[in-house]
Amino acid sequence: MPELTFEVRAASESPARVRVAARQFSLVVDEPPELGGSDAGPNPVETVLAGLAGCLNVVAHLVAAERGIALRNLEIVARGGLNPDRLLNRSTADRAGFQWIEATLSFDSDAPPEVLRGWLADVEARCPVSDNLGRPTPLTLRIRSLTPR
Amino acid sequence: MPELTFEVRAASESPARVRVAARQFSLVVDEPPELGGSDAGPNPVETVLAGLAGCLNVVAHLVAAERGIALRNLEIVARGGLNPDRLLNRSTADRAGFQWIEATLSFDSDAPPEVLRGWLADVEARCPVSDNLGRPTPLTLRIRSLTPR
Repeated sequence: MPELTFEVRAASESPARVRVAARQFSLVVDEPPELGGSDAGPNPVETVLAGLAGCLNVVAHLVAAERGIALRNLEIVARGGLNPDRLLNRSTADRAGFQWIEATLSFDSDAPPEVLRGWLADVEARCPVSDNLGRPTPLTLRIRSLTPR
Repeated sequence: MPELTFEVRAASESPARVRVAARQFSLVVDEPPELGGSDAGPNPVETVLAGLAGCLNVVAHLVAAERGIALRNLEIVARGGLNPDRLLNRSTADRAGFQWIEATLSFDSDAPPEVLRGWLADVEARCPVSDNLGRPTPLTLRIRSLTPR
């Protein structure tokens, strides 16, 4: 299949807050007061975890349907831990981002554990967001300074 | 600083749609119809790009303030391209997730280009979401099957 391209456009509303447009959708990403924001929305790393949870839901159901596994009442808790010292310019001992991420999928199913283990391995291998978090992705940042020089 | 932990809880509302709670915030992540959803919210990979844009906004302003750079009217466009064949079980030739991600930061500033280049390098190095996308992160998926066996 040809490449699918996804794009969001974010307008800064404060040093901590953006309004993000993704197609017809709008969401606000902010920080809580202790991280310098006005707490008008989930923070950036919570937003990434939301994307992971959304992706796992899609792939969990897709792979379950392929394998004839009935999956009911799926809930996903996604968590991660990070040390903000690098972000805050206090220390470079730890990486900037999450040092670990875990997601727990809770659901009702009559499928035996060995079937669910194979299902879960396929979910992880085929989930785009799991892939982008678990493995490196080429990331390019560009500047477009609008002030004529 | 002690580790900060972030958590979201997602309830599946359909095979493509989740309602995600992040502290007091709620957001819906879905897929467009061509990807099997009902288009009730941004899709998972758009949600990840929203988190990247939100993170870049925070770190861009933080580093600018440290360096005495005036940054006005920041807008961030974040894009990525992926091949859905692995997700859809059609081919494993390409990875599941974004094969590339790029973000363009547009803004007004009087700072000279060489100052902005140093600023941008520091933004990328200190942005948690850039770090988690650009470098591998240990990711653990767990199952909690609720049906007694």
